[in-house]
Amino acid sequence: MNDTFLKACRGEKTDYTPIWMMRQAGRYLPEYQKVRANFTFLELCKTPELCVEVTLQPVDILGVDAAILFSDILIPMEAMGAPLYFHEGRGPIFPEPVRTREALDRLIVPDPELHTGFVMETIRLLRKELKVPLIGFSGAPFTLATYLIEGGSSKVFWETKKMMFTQPDLFHSLMEKITACTSLYLQAQARAGAQALQIFDSWAGVLAPCDFEEFALPYVQKIISDLKATGLPIIYFANNGATLLELSVQSGADVLGLDWRIDIGDAVKVVGNRAVQGNIDPFALMLPKDKLRQRIGNLLHGARNAHGHIFNLGHGIHQFTPPDQAKIAIDAVHELSANHKYR
Amino acid sequence: MNDTFLKACRGEKTDYTPIWMMRQAGRYLPEYQKVRANFTFLELCKTPELCVEVTLQPVDILGVDAAILFSDILIPMEAMGAPLYFHEGRGPIFPEPVRTREALDRLIVPDPELHTGFVMETIRLLRKELKVPLIGFSGAPFTLATYLIEGGSSKVFWETKKMMFTQPDLFHSLMEKITACTSLYLQAQARAGAQALQIFDSWAGVLAPCDFEEFALPYVQKIISDLKATGLPIIYFANNGATLLELSVQSGADVLGLDWRIDIGDAVKVVGNRAVQGNIDPFALMLPKDKLRQRIGNLLHGARNAHGHIFNLGHGIHQFTPPDQAKIAIDAVHELSANHKYR
Repeated sequence: MNDTFLKACRGEKTDYTPIWMMRQAGRYLPEYQKVRANFTFLELCKTPELCVEVTLQPVDILGVDAAILFSDILIPMEAMGAPLYFHEGRGPIFPEPVRTREALDRLIVPDPELHTGFVMETIRLLRKELKVPLIGFSGAPFTLATYLIEGGSSKVFWETKKMMFTQPDLFHSLMEKITACTSLYLQAQARAGAQALQIFDSWAGVLAPCDFEEFALPYVQKIISDLKATGLPIIYFANNGATLLELSVQSGADVLGLDWRIDIGDAVKVVGNRAVQGNIDPFALMLPKDKLRQRIGNLLHGARNAHGHIFNLGHGIHQFTPPDQAKIAIDAVHELSANHKYR
Repeated sequence: MNDTFLKACRGEKTDYTPIWMMRQAGRYLPEYQKVRANFTFLELCKTPELCVEVTLQPVDILGVDAAILFSDILIPMEAMGAPLYFHEGRGPIFPEPVRTREALDRLIVPDPELHTGFVMETIRLLRKELKVPLIGFSGAPFTLATYLIEGGSSKVFWETKKMMFTQPDLFHSLMEKITACTSLYLQAQARAGAQALQIFDSWAGVLAPCDFEEFALPYVQKIISDLKATGLPIIYFANNGATLLELSVQSGADVLGLDWRIDIGDAVKVVGNRAVQGNIDPFALMLPKDKLRQRIGNLLHGARNAHGHIFNLGHGIHQFTPPDQAKIAIDAVHELSANHKYR
């Protein structure tokens, strides 16, 4: 069992810097495309044997130090009773957006084993196969709320902010219900065997710090507080969240995920006694080998004073990235971080 | 002549905090919609009398302290020889993206009076009408390059970054040509009568600080250095640029524009001896009057140690904003900032 990733999460000394990549199971891998070709995205998400197969692919092919459950952050939202489908071009669609008290009242707080048992089954199956730690995950309440309110992806989040600013009570009620669902969902993942949990706040970065503090952070804090009893390391990733980092530390997470916009050395100074995860620009994987290795060396050096560093991309790997380039990066992280010059 | 805006740009003491709003001439105003209904967007941009009319509207209706030329950042790119049209839903489209040396070589460095004379004529006409200062503007080279390379708007800028990382020489050559064009374009605006110049770097925020420093900042510096002889205050606005602020100060701009993601007090500490412009979340204009005034008061107080503060939104005003809400904000800025409690 390779537990380098878990050690780094806890801020313990490791022989090298562990690495995994957000969306490491995904479209850039021909092996994934082959599985995906025969199923819709939701069919794939709901079939444990297929989820196991694609979760294992990057571990076997690339040699990453952690696996992350293959699923989607919106799965528990569908389980709350919001009809969901995935449009090939436009992404996730909730055809019945939640914008009224009545729509909110129709949502349930699902039983994770009953309504999303396929996720828990995937975790149990994966634990029998894996030689690296398994990360479970969820979306953060604010991010999940944006999808329900907007009815899918959004560029500017007009409906979400309009509700926040003109109907704050309704917004907070929605956040409470999503939080209850998410907390149970992650606790169930822990019971099923997840060894770390990441909370993805993909859209937190559209909030001013004062609004993040009022409308988003308290719900992340509640979930992480509920998860303390599991003893698992918790990673909180607020995408585009450089200006939210000081507040994000107050989430109680053990590890702060960083997108590529922030210098990792600056981030380490802010997070203090927590581990960091990140943060190379995923598109920088396109750099020629020597420049890619140089950038990775700089990043490792920048994180040298971190209380634990898990190498990752600053965002999901892009579908057009050649897997060979990902492999070069992973090998470089392992090789360079084992050298005292960089850490 | 109300020169409060120009004084604030220079860091001089003012009786109150001046305010204007990005996209203040635009779709949220019924008076703009009425003009726009009879013309395409490009026809509007190329007809000085119409540009004058819509530029004046927010000054007359809302009482802002500065006018900004009605135009589009892509106008000089079309003048370089890149065919451009605006799709009602998808925004600007360059049907012939610039991704090769040959495509780059076909672009010219236009003569601003010859190829974009309608812009200079608009400025000359506006100066006869206006009782507040007139801001001219351009896009920043990186932002303009993304449109040419992607062929329009983009979500992730794959083509742009792929060129940066795999063909840096080609990328830098394109940036040099756009820089030459932009520098001449802004100098011509100064000669025509613009009294301040804003450089919009709408997409700088997708760059890691190290890439911003290598691929974007030097070209902004070159333009601002070329403009020093005009004596006009220069505003540099790197959207989503909180982590680029320290580098942005090195641009040489007199005023740093801030989006809403950063606490203005934190920004003031970074920019030191420069003025700041910003930065309320445009969607916070939806707040009820008392909460909106409270937020504006907090923001004015946060900026109290700035070496000049121009109040603005952190991004363009949203098309669904009721003009009455914008008016409440403008009146609140004027009233509260005249009170020593807030500044």
